[in-house]
Amino acid sequence: MNWDLLLTHASLATFVGEATYGLLTDAAIACQGGQIVWIGAMRDLSAESVATTRDMHDIGGALVTPGLIDCHTHLVFGGDRAQEFDLRLNGATYEEIARTGGGIVSSVRATRNASEDELLAQSLPRARALLADGVTTLEIKSGYGLELEAERRMLRVARRIGRELGIHVQTSFLGLHALPPEYKDHRDDYVDLVCNELLPALAQEGLVDAVDAFCEGIGFTRAETQRVFEHARQLGLRVKLHAEQLSDLDGAALVAEFGGLSADHLEYLSDAGIQAMARAGTAAVLLPGAFYALRETKLPPVASLRSHGVPIAIATDCNPGTSPLLSLRLAANMACTLFRLTPEEALRGITVHAARALGLHDRGTLAVGKRADLVVWNAKQPAELCYWIGGGLVRQIWIGGMAALF
Amino acid sequence: MNWDLLLTHASLATFVGEATYGLLTDAAIACQGGQIVWIGAMRDLSAESVATTRDMHDIGGALVTPGLIDCHTHLVFGGDRAQEFDLRLNGATYEEIARTGGGIVSSVRATRNASEDELLAQSLPRARALLADGVTTLEIKSGYGLELEAERRMLRVARRIGRELGIHVQTSFLGLHALPPEYKDHRDDYVDLVCNELLPALAQEGLVDAVDAFCEGIGFTRAETQRVFEHARQLGLRVKLHAEQLSDLDGAALVAEFGGLSADHLEYLSDAGIQAMARAGTAAVLLPGAFYALRETKLPPVASLRSHGVPIAIATDCNPGTSPLLSLRLAANMACTLFRLTPEEALRGITVHAARALGLHDRGTLAVGKRADLVVWNAKQPAELCYWIGGGLVRQIWIGGMAALF
Ligand SMILES: [Zn+2]
Ligand SMILES: [Zn+2]
Repeated sequence: MNWDLLLTHASLATFVGEATYGLLTDAAIACQGGQIVWIGAMRDLSAESVATTRDMHDIGGALVTPGLIDCHTHLVFGGDRAQEFDLRLNGATYEEIARTGGGIVSSVRATRNASEDELLAQSLPRARALLADGVTTLEIKSGYGLELEAERRMLRVARRIGRELGIHVQTSFLGLHALPPEYKDHRDDYVDLVCNELLPALAQEGLVDAVDAFCEGIGFTRAETQRVFEHARQLGLRVKLHAEQLSDLDGAALVAEFGGLSADHLEYLSDAGIQAMARAGTAAVLLPGAFYALRETKLPPVASLRSHGVPIAIATDCNPGTSPLLSLRLAANMACTLFRLTPEEALRGITVHAARALGLHDRGTLAVGKRADLVVWNAKQPAELCYWIGGGLVRQIWIGGMAALF
Repeated sequence: MNWDLLLTHASLATFVGEATYGLLTDAAIACQGGQIVWIGAMRDLSAESVATTRDMHDIGGALVTPGLIDCHTHLVFGGDRAQEFDLRLNGATYEEIARTGGGIVSSVRATRNASEDELLAQSLPRARALLADGVTTLEIKSGYGLELEAERRMLRVARRIGRELGIHVQTSFLGLHALPPEYKDHRDDYVDLVCNELLPALAQEGLVDAVDAFCEGIGFTRAETQRVFEHARQLGLRVKLHAEQLSDLDGAALVAEFGGLSADHLEYLSDAGIQAMARAGTAAVLLPGAFYALRETKLPPVASLRSHGVPIAIATDCNPGTSPLLSLRLAANMACTLFRLTPEEALRGITVHAARALGLHDRGTLAVGKRADLVVWNAKQPAELCYWIGGGLVRQIWIGGMAALF
């Protein structure tokens, strides 16, 4: 045996098997070499195992889940948009805010003007807030640089956040996030730049784990999205897409066509889109933080996603403009409250289905062979994680079997 | 001089004077004997003051606010209702939940069954979560006991929370919260009990700072509310009221008639109610957490409250059924997002106007003579406190000039 870590008297929300939450009560879980190596009932735990374990914790009936996975964030950016939030609530129109240099271009400007160290210093507290809330795997997108140097800086900072906090960071290149001001009359040239220069260069440097785009009336067209997806495919990179957030551009079917990892937002998703996603095994990533902050009223088609068996993930969409959300557990509460997901669906959405939305097969459940990413909660029942709004419920975190500081 | 505490290079959101947020940048604030004794520009700070200060902190431009004040909570209770939240999202009707023993009676049962120490152990983490979010003054209501012993236990626990955390707890006796099951066919007898036994006994023991009631179709009538208010007046206690949450029972005018501290919730408040409150100086306490959790659509009349000059406070309403909200800053975000308050209004709502809703004149602003309840934030601008959703932004807290642990 000689286990590295053993948690006893645990309630394990494994998300494996048919039981609700895959719940095992009065159970134990053991880890070795960064992996889960044993899970079982307390009564099946041998005295020898206990005697030879290096680090053992009786957690007194507390809930243990897999480390949470935030599969859609834009948390590396310069500046913030609190001023704009204030102006808007004081009655300023979007035009007035644009005239004062607000909107996404202000984030692009602040990101371009920040050095790599400045960008890290500004972004790290946001990642730390997510970690303190139980997040051990984090997706971070580029897309506020929109030029080679600044996009590279964003992705390098994303990697550095992972190293700094000991969490796993998965990057997505989001060159097609917004048209940079200097290309306003040359959009084709910008798409060319993204496809032919930025993406290949950054992929070459190992900075790109997947490719994303913002397919929307105010973003990029379906045809432009398809172009960047084709380049991604040539480079052997998986794709995902901001799709059907404000209108239906049939983006979900496009990402499904490319065997994409996920289509994200999806308020305006059609039945045809759902069917295409179901066939392709593309996950649906719902982002209730943006829905909440924008006071949207059009709900994503949860019932139809369910009935077609599309895996539903939930993420913070942490970003300065439309979702300055620093808690994945709060996103899960919003998914329940606003989208009427069950707590079990919401929790699968920030664990096993979020792993799937990132193409990661080694995490998201508690099962032998999976990574030893564990969170012990100040809670007994899984539903509490969705029920409490705010507050710090995390008691302890292990990432790859290592105790995390947060 | 010989100041106890001096914070230099601060951005002070004083909430005093006409400037937005009462903001003073590049300022300093000094405390002595638990009070604020000096506030001014850095350039006006004398070398001698600096030299003789016991504890000085250069906070590098960070934002300082008064300690936040949560002026409406029910955070002392036994059990939780996560199970019920889960059942409801899985499609159970209110009747089915009631049949399984859910609803407010389940909180009453769990509260009655808990010893004082158990109740403290269960409630303390909730108060600690609020403190960690910047709350230094906290109102806590009774109302899950609904019998002498259990109401006393709740109020004693409220006081103990204050001592335990070093925060100020203001209690409200809420005997008229729900009709206890054993009085279901004798509601007059219960109102008699509250007025003639519970209230005088608990007031006598010094456990009651104010008297509250739930005036609503599913709660108590206007006449029943008036009875308990009359008893409160005889005891020299100020009143406040859960009013106009789900319907208009003209409760706000009633509480105004009694010179009440506040009317709370107020989604269905009429213009006549607003005028009565304005005349009486009764504060409006808005509770966006309950609005959010119940997915209400009827907004409180913010514009009319504004135009009549009614002070607007914001609180968590932290309670197990309709607002399991553990962050006052998140309540402020919800007030902006859902009720369209400006960030300044929301922040005045959790500081100066919340103090007023509790009848406390010694706090809620940064001004000479006020209590030295200070929060230093990981933020530069006041609007950030409303803009970020979740996350821990508190850097440091002093309560009455004493550094708080959280
Ligand atoms: Zn996004
Ligand atoms: Zn209440």
